[in-house]
Amino acid sequence: MRDVCIIGIGQTPIGELWDYSLRELAFQALDQAAREAGIERPEALFVGNMLAPRLSDQAHLGALVADFAGWRGIEAATVEAACASGGVAFQAAVRAVGSGAVDVAAVCGVEKMTDDTPELVTSALATAADADYECVHGASFVALNALIMRRYMHEYRVPHEAFAPFSINAHRNAMNNPNAMFQRPITLEDYQRASMISEPINLYDSSPICDGAAAIIVCPLEMARSLTDRPLVRVRASVTATDSLDLASRRDLLALEAAQLSARKAYEKSGLTPADVDVFEVHDAFSIMAALSLEAAGFAERGRGTWPARDGEIAIGGRIPISTMGGLKGRGHPVGATGVYELVDLVTQLRGEAEANQVKNARIGMTQNIGGTGATVVTHILERMN
Amino acid sequence: MRDVCIIGIGQTPIGELWDYSLRELAFQALDQAAREAGIERPEALFVGNMLAPRLSDQAHLGALVADFAGWRGIEAATVEAACASGGVAFQAAVRAVGSGAVDVAAVCGVEKMTDDTPELVTSALATAADADYECVHGASFVALNALIMRRYMHEYRVPHEAFAPFSINAHRNAMNNPNAMFQRPITLEDYQRASMISEPINLYDSSPICDGAAAIIVCPLEMARSLTDRPLVRVRASVTATDSLDLASRRDLLALEAAQLSARKAYEKSGLTPADVDVFEVHDAFSIMAALSLEAAGFAERGRGTWPARDGEIAIGGRIPISTMGGLKGRGHPVGATGVYELVDLVTQLRGEAEANQVKNARIGMTQNIGGTGATVVTHILERMN
Repeated sequence: MRDVCIIGIGQTPIGELWDYSLRELAFQALDQAAREAGIERPEALFVGNMLAPRLSDQAHLGALVADFAGWRGIEAATVEAACASGGVAFQAAVRAVGSGAVDVAAVCGVEKMTDDTPELVTSALATAADADYECVHGASFVALNALIMRRYMHEYRVPHEAFAPFSINAHRNAMNNPNAMFQRPITLEDYQRASMISEPINLYDSSPICDGAAAIIVCPLEMARSLTDRPLVRVRASVTATDSLDLASRRDLLALEAAQLSARKAYEKSGLTPADVDVFEVHDAFSIMAALSLEAAGFAERGRGTWPARDGEIAIGGRIPISTMGGLKGRGHPVGATGVYELVDLVTQLRGEAEANQVKNARIGMTQNIGGTGATVVTHILERMN
Repeated sequence: MRDVCIIGIGQTPIGELWDYSLRELAFQALDQAAREAGIERPEALFVGNMLAPRLSDQAHLGALVADFAGWRGIEAATVEAACASGGVAFQAAVRAVGSGAVDVAAVCGVEKMTDDTPELVTSALATAADADYECVHGASFVALNALIMRRYMHEYRVPHEAFAPFSINAHRNAMNNPNAMFQRPITLEDYQRASMISEPINLYDSSPICDGAAAIIVCPLEMARSLTDRPLVRVRASVTATDSLDLASRRDLLALEAAQLSARKAYEKSGLTPADVDVFEVHDAFSIMAALSLEAAGFAERGRGTWPARDGEIAIGGRIPISTMGGLKGRGHPVGATGVYELVDLVTQLRGEAEANQVKNARIGMTQNIGGTGATVVTHILERMN
């Protein structure tokens, strides 16, 4: 496979963007990314989206977005793996270029969630879980994550407050991100007083319902050198792994085995180890997922996923900075777009463009994009080359 | 890109399969394909599906199907482009193997449409069209195809009966396909007396609402030689092209430009011409689409797409046999699965396993899988190697 580089990124602010339709959001992100890359038109477009068929009565986003972006005719498709849709769509773009099938590919993660009622959004999000074995019993997606968090707290005797530093860190980092949904800090007291969503998950353990789009342009290494003067960011590993959708079928409820597997393979493919990673954009849709992702990717021992948060190691300047632009918690979590936002944030860090939130000398970064309660996990390792 | 071969195919019968769930259908097709290929487990699975998020309350089919097939852990994702979902999913599998990222990939097209009311199915199918510019006015998917057919009949002065031979041919071929939904012939009189669905599209111009799954296993050429004694079928070209979703934005309502573009590129990539093609599996979701696809792919002059049907050229033994196992009309059209069924039928022909429907000495075959009213078109050219 050819070496693949990222030569353009784009994103919309995340929020309740009632003035823009799905296709308009996608266009804004893609247009930014294409201008930055200095390309007129990619040969292929992969759209990461989960909810449009239910919330916008719209499937077939590949051709729709390609046309609206002014690229009628190019190859296009939607790639979906619930909340990991953005990550698998990026992987499809990497494969398209890596295989030699195309030279320039675009990926766009886009989601529009705030035009519908919370009831419709909750039932649409539940399609990430097992309809026949979980949702049929009335379990919502947050309820399933709450089961995991409850079990974690019980098994390892971890108090609820141990998760607070994840939310505090995410909100602190989001303050300096103009595209973040929540640009304000929260305190331990705020966290403790937050209303309960699905016990033990409270408001600050959760990411918001929101709209947004992020985009990336990729091309082969040789071409990247001639197209851009910005620091080159290369894809060192792109690995997807899976687990059962339903929690009851998991061998180990607290292991997040797909995250372990995809991280292990990503380290193997890149020849790197956790010690080499300067920034880690985690999938903190719920704070329990941040803890489990840290464990699965080798940054914390089992049952000790909250320790790096407690010890300040996840902060910018710490051992393993996470959610550096606010993460899913602070920046926002437009589900099908999130995997692309994680990559965009990471590229921003690796290029040294993160300003107040810059991780010093960041050269190797990792993202983990999690679909469902861990049924699909996509790990990407990126490297700054110059 | 490495040469990619098809080493296993599988399919369920198509029909109203109320005894089997979505995942069970997918498993049946994948299990057949994997046994035929002689593999235990692929490294990646790509699921082609359009309607499950709406009709089965289930997204995230990649991991779901991978797990149910006994392949927990492998890479998996859903690839969607409306009715072209099966074709784009197969393309993703070809890229995964072609790039060297994996050696063995599986693709499964699966759709379950008959558990819901016709009203729900009609509104779900309409998500293939433009929600904001077409469906908002109440246009159903069949109504949009009817606009194209009406325009075609007007523009080229083609009577409705000119389309009858497409349906008659499809039904005749479906008689010998044990997996086809309609294993009975129809006559010109049946066609003429059929009830109107959306004028001028009548019952026999339309494909049925149905359930089904089809699967394919692919691997690199070198590996294929060691794995199977069956005739080797190689992918010579895999090309997706797009057009606007909404008909009103098309430059030319009757040109099917995405089909022209994807066919032209597929010929270029393979170094072949229409004259080299022994079998052509068209996307005859509506008979007008069969005519337009024949024109776009170079088998008929503009406005003369019904001529090959009139002249018997589309029959087995004719110049360009189409819908050889019944096509979407006779075999059935479980939308997200259709692109994979087309490929499975073509492989059956190229291997010489089509029995009563065998096209003699078929060595080069083509499929065209159409999403929406032509907004995404995937063309594949396959070749028998030995």
